[in-house]
Amino acid sequence: MPALGLDLGGTSVRAAVLDPVSGALLASVREQHADRSPEAVVAACVRVAGAALATAGCALPASAGIGVAGQCAGHSGLVVNAPNLGWRMVPLAERLGRALGLRVRVVNDLSAAAIGEHRFGAARGVEDAVLFFVGSGVGAGLLIGGRLAEGSAGFAGEAGHVKVRPRPGAAERRCGCGQLSCLEAYTGGHALSAQAREALAAGRMPGLAAILGGELARATPSRIEQAAAGGDADAALLWEETGELLGDAAANLVTVLNPARLVLGGGVLLGCPLLRARVEARLLERVSASAGQVLAVVRASLGDDAGVVGAALAGAGG
Amino acid sequence: MPALGLDLGGTSVRAAVLDPVSGALLASVREQHADRSPEAVVAACVRVAGAALATAGCALPASAGIGVAGQCAGHSGLVVNAPNLGWRMVPLAERLGRALGLRVRVVNDLSAAAIGEHRFGAARGVEDAVLFFVGSGVGAGLLIGGRLAEGSAGFAGEAGHVKVRPRPGAAERRCGCGQLSCLEAYTGGHALSAQAREALAAGRMPGLAAILGGELARATPSRIEQAAAGGDADAALLWEETGELLGDAAANLVTVLNPARLVLGGGVLLGCPLLRARVEARLLERVSASAGQVLAVVRASLGDDAGVVGAALAGAGG
Repeated sequence: MPALGLDLGGTSVRAAVLDPVSGALLASVREQHADRSPEAVVAACVRVAGAALATAGCALPASAGIGVAGQCAGHSGLVVNAPNLGWRMVPLAERLGRALGLRVRVVNDLSAAAIGEHRFGAARGVEDAVLFFVGSGVGAGLLIGGRLAEGSAGFAGEAGHVKVRPRPGAAERRCGCGQLSCLEAYTGGHALSAQAREALAAGRMPGLAAILGGELARATPSRIEQAAAGGDADAALLWEETGELLGDAAANLVTVLNPARLVLGGGVLLGCPLLRARVEARLLERVSASAGQVLAVVRASLGDDAGVVGAALAGAGG
Repeated sequence: MPALGLDLGGTSVRAAVLDPVSGALLASVREQHADRSPEAVVAACVRVAGAALATAGCALPASAGIGVAGQCAGHSGLVVNAPNLGWRMVPLAERLGRALGLRVRVVNDLSAAAIGEHRFGAARGVEDAVLFFVGSGVGAGLLIGGRLAEGSAGFAGEAGHVKVRPRPGAAERRCGCGQLSCLEAYTGGHALSAQAREALAAGRMPGLAAILGGELARATPSRIEQAAAGGDADAALLWEETGELLGDAAANLVTVLNPARLVLGGGVLLGCPLLRARVEARLLERVSASAGQVLAVVRASLGDDAGVVGAALAGAGG
């Protein structure tokens, strides 16, 4: 019985039809959304879901799942806060369910990815795994005792909002969530770009400046990586500090949860091998000896499909 | 059917017979152990277990549980490392099971306390709870989705070994586990006493010096608390830093796991209300807004009984 999954991000929504036995995607349709209002997004969801089901030649299933880049309040289906969409307290399960005419399960995007990687990807075959993802933000998906850990209200895995101490002399940074000193405020993709722009404005990161040729808006993590690799000492220092903060945070997750696998993913970690190597070295140095001995560090293997696959499985009750 | 539980610490072992329906202890016997060799400790376990069963008028059950202050490798029954006992790689379930003539389940002491507090104490009635204990060491017990989370090899909950950054200017401290910058190396009871002795040797903490009257070995956490409360600025500064480190660590556990309850316990936290108030204030300031909104912070309610109650329940398969 094919399963329907959706993956809702800040700029696009994707629907896919999954064969839950083989893990194959029978159809996949994506649509950009300029209008991010709940009404417009729900309408876009209905269009991509209908198109994916039609392409796969499937009837409407009884239920579906949707992964959302934001905080989702577990089984209530409420999107509590999705900064990329500008949403607060949107009852997505109810609205989308009514529009599609089926039951909808709403999960956080990294929880969806954890389900997907667990069933068909890098976390296959183990009972305890932690996904640690660094993209524009930072987050985790937790598989504990073979089950997704969502916490008492669906907020588990908010690893981007653990608090860190910056290096001596460095200023505390304010996070998009409003709090000071969240890990994501230093190490998320948006924060890294912001720190590079600040350095450039202060006349630092000459190597990065040369790469960008004056276009500061192009100061992405992969260009910082390029500058660090090319000998820009300021960029290298940012990578060192970022590697320490992310490595310590990942190590602390492993020390506390003792997973068999740590799955690294997200655009920043997968797109910046130099940074990833720093993170891996730091985490292996800082994880407790006992938890480190039984740990395998792997890369996410389903790529961009993990979320939609996991959402389909969650929606089908898997 | 009464259940048999044991609680093995660095200086004593206790056995108790539990009524698993009411939570009442039908008998409890404790013995100090001067000889901490596995042979001598197993013999002491057999004595206290026999005495507790005789007192309760119970026959030998088919199984029992034992909580151990140390790292225990899950269902294998191996004590991997118990620094207070000087043990490494002791197959306790096998040895104690043979000596007692029954099946023995070995769990970490905080995992045992988590089971006990969950069934009969401060974590009763919730599916997701985190115990955060500060005694001579620091540790956590994790209840996730109604079950004890032990990790892939039984090492989950090692919150004392998450890595922290000390304040600017403060030296990195080495932990008893051998690693640098573990939380426990700054904030465990032993570490707090050591830092107080170092301060006294350097001519600081005059208020504490007056309280101790020259007996440096009496520089316990409760006396540091007394000095801080009495206006010793150095002691107050140590309490401030300790409150920040413990508060941040507890906040980060809650941010990642989103429990309904955080249960604070252990001799240092329960015996030092000023420090505990600092920890609570800091954790509520630093926890993510979403996880903080649904959190209740409570104190452990079973006291010293939690471990032996939980061990009995774990041993009985509860």
